[in-house]
Amino acid sequence: MLKKTALMVCAALAAAPALAAPKNIIYMIGDGMGPAYLAAYRYYMDDPATKTVERTIFDELWVGVATTYPDDDTVVTDSAAAATALATTHKTYNGAISVDHQHHNLTTMLEIAKAKGKTTGVVATAQINHATPASFIAHDPARRNYDAIADDFFDNRVHGKPVADLMLGGGTQYFIRKDRNLVEQFKSEGYQYADNWDGLRQLNKLPAMALLAPEGFVSTIDNPEPAPLKQMTEKALQLMSGSEKGFVVMIEGSQIDWCGHANDVACAMAEMRDFAESIKVAKAYVDSHPDTLLVITADHETGGLSLGANGQYAWKRDVIKKVKNSGDYIADQLLPLKDAATLYQAWLSFTSLPLSAEEQQLLVNARAEGQKTLAKAVKQRIDHHSLTGWTSGAHTAIDVPVLAYGADKAAFAGFQDNTDIAAKLIEFIQK
Amino acid sequence: MLKKTALMVCAALAAAPALAAPKNIIYMIGDGMGPAYLAAYRYYMDDPATKTVERTIFDELWVGVATTYPDDDTVVTDSAAAATALATTHKTYNGAISVDHQHHNLTTMLEIAKAKGKTTGVVATAQINHATPASFIAHDPARRNYDAIADDFFDNRVHGKPVADLMLGGGTQYFIRKDRNLVEQFKSEGYQYADNWDGLRQLNKLPAMALLAPEGFVSTIDNPEPAPLKQMTEKALQLMSGSEKGFVVMIEGSQIDWCGHANDVACAMAEMRDFAESIKVAKAYVDSHPDTLLVITADHETGGLSLGANGQYAWKRDVIKKVKNSGDYIADQLLPLKDAATLYQAWLSFTSLPLSAEEQQLLVNARAEGQKTLAKAVKQRIDHHSLTGWTSGAHTAIDVPVLAYGADKAAFAGFQDNTDIAAKLIEFIQK
Ligand SMILES: [Zn+2]
Ligand SMILES: [Zn+2]
Repeated sequence: MLKKTALMVCAALAAAPALAAPKNIIYMIGDGMGPAYLAAYRYYMDDPATKTVERTIFDELWVGVATTYPDDDTVVTDSAAAATALATTHKTYNGAISVDHQHHNLTTMLEIAKAKGKTTGVVATAQINHATPASFIAHDPARRNYDAIADDFFDNRVHGKPVADLMLGGGTQYFIRKDRNLVEQFKSEGYQYADNWDGLRQLNKLPAMALLAPEGFVSTIDNPEPAPLKQMTEKALQLMSGSEKGFVVMIEGSQIDWCGHANDVACAMAEMRDFAESIKVAKAYVDSHPDTLLVITADHETGGLSLGANGQYAWKRDVIKKVKNSGDYIADQLLPLKDAATLYQAWLSFTSLPLSAEEQQLLVNARAEGQKTLAKAVKQRIDHHSLTGWTSGAHTAIDVPVLAYGADKAAFAGFQDNTDIAAKLIEFIQK
Repeated sequence: MLKKTALMVCAALAAAPALAAPKNIIYMIGDGMGPAYLAAYRYYMDDPATKTVERTIFDELWVGVATTYPDDDTVVTDSAAAATALATTHKTYNGAISVDHQHHNLTTMLEIAKAKGKTTGVVATAQINHATPASFIAHDPARRNYDAIADDFFDNRVHGKPVADLMLGGGTQYFIRKDRNLVEQFKSEGYQYADNWDGLRQLNKLPAMALLAPEGFVSTIDNPEPAPLKQMTEKALQLMSGSEKGFVVMIEGSQIDWCGHANDVACAMAEMRDFAESIKVAKAYVDSHPDTLLVITADHETGGLSLGANGQYAWKRDVIKKVKNSGDYIADQLLPLKDAATLYQAWLSFTSLPLSAEEQQLLVNARAEGQKTLAKAVKQRIDHHSLTGWTSGAHTAIDVPVLAYGADKAAFAGFQDNTDIAAKLIEFIQK
């Protein structure tokens, strides 16, 4: 009889919402991070000395998938419509920053969190007024209105305050303009401000802002500053940790997408590595603060990346591991080298990838046509030898991974739409 | 106090294996069915009259993902190594049919099920001695040894009987040979046998075998017999339903892969549709037989399919919906048509896709070079207009979807290796 009673209580417990809403939410978005990026990163990071393929932090946290289609007939979303869905629960048209087809504002989860007295923040390796972070803070009919969106970061207010207590990323050229100096305005409202990495490390209370580049950061693979997103993630969690009513922070691995648009696999792996390191920081935070929920997804896939090309049954990650810089950077360095032998020596210094005489000639020919053609040729040689495939320089309609960690992670398991992710998070914030 | 006791009992119940092992297992494998195929099928099937995108049966059942890498350094598996992993829990080399590197037999889950007195079966739209079904029944160092593998279907025995009580698919040329008539041998052991669709429908008891084509079936998109896999799935579940100790059946959507190798998206969507209809039949069986577990996965991805190409933000499923046949079939029909206008009229009758004068000329030129070039040109026009992308004619290393339905579906949630799927199923079978 006790057993029957117990089973009935178990059933009741199972049917009721299992757990209280988390106090803190860490919402991480890998821009353009389709499922192939996670597989690529796993095999790229695999230790060749061991028999098994090691699981990555992505693999450990993977719980579901999400659809990303926008509110039109294209099926393929841009980052603005996707970020609006992920921030507001509303599908909209490509290009929209948290507005609907009639250009009415759509309330964002950071606005809701701020209204509830929570601490709020965004972190990105793009300019912070780029589509993804912008859709959490601002409203604009067109993502390209960068100045107006930057203005909204200061002018769009909840209870008389800017939406975000913390903003870390790039964008000085939009926030310090001839017509308006938004940084000075934020400072005059009590925001600490840093414009370099030492300054970032010295930020010690909220509200705070760091703009560490004129626009987006230099590609991580080419950046002398190691693990930029990881550094900002550590600082963000340190600053937000004390908040009495909890915090909501959106942390974007912005440039996975940019490497995808460039069809640059070595560049993408470096961004994935920084994003993975940032996730590890966030996961450790959840381990020490069990009232925190970590949710990670992508806004869409970029490039139609695949691990296998040209009818061959292999993907050669060793080739990619040896590439030291982005295709663009390598092309910049090779461009002045008119002598074929010198050019090839430089190629080898950046890639350690031997080329046939015919392939060396392809580089020489491409160099003669300019930086853009040369950068393309550089990446094509790397793709050819690593058997990496791409189908587009734009986004695709592939579903994206959903990762979660913390007591409420089960809410994000299985198949869902990107708007479902926002709805669950907003439900937690509103509790 | 009761509550505390109840909670302790709940914890104990949660920690213990939650449920009895299922009596029956339906294990479905979409050969080559990477995640892009599920997204493509969703948007392809979407009702344009409704605002929302309808969920498919795949979406409803999606619970996890699986890695597919083989036991070598290629990262990209073939169907034999993948099927061996899915049937035995062991990674092996590409080409192996349930043998290890030393060519020792690896015990398959159908052998284990048969030893436990369960009813066993395989269903495929390939020849039944093709890599995937073969790896559940036979052992061979090389998948291309089709005759030897067919022999093993009869000669490899458990408790004196062939491994499979039911075999439905193609393959008469391997099972009725000059040197050996395996069909007669099976008949002499009491197997009912059919070699046509009417005969299939008349099968009424086990053991039974139907070989409905000399090798694999005609592509579903070109097949006058509607939904061949669905028909076989219905028959298989009907015949296995009565089995006292339960059954284990592997049902393969074999030719999703073949369309992927051909980079033929319309062909792939037709195979996905038949596979989806078969899954619906299996799901309905679980609904009426709750002691049945349904698990669905893919052995690997084929083709590097992506939904988006050429830098455009769209995937145009309407183009694909209008294509009536496979690229190979269309090329066969267009090949005799030497007059350009007649050729284009025929093109329109198969695709309803208007082409520019320049594109029409591409078809004319391709026709002059023969069937293979023409088939490629046909598919390229469809890809170009639908913005479908491919990276390879072979397999890729992308992770594959895992779907499950039934009381034990949670065992397959989240991230796992293909060998984990086999391990969980074998654990259930051995209970
Ligand atoms: Zn994006
Ligand atoms: Zn296969």
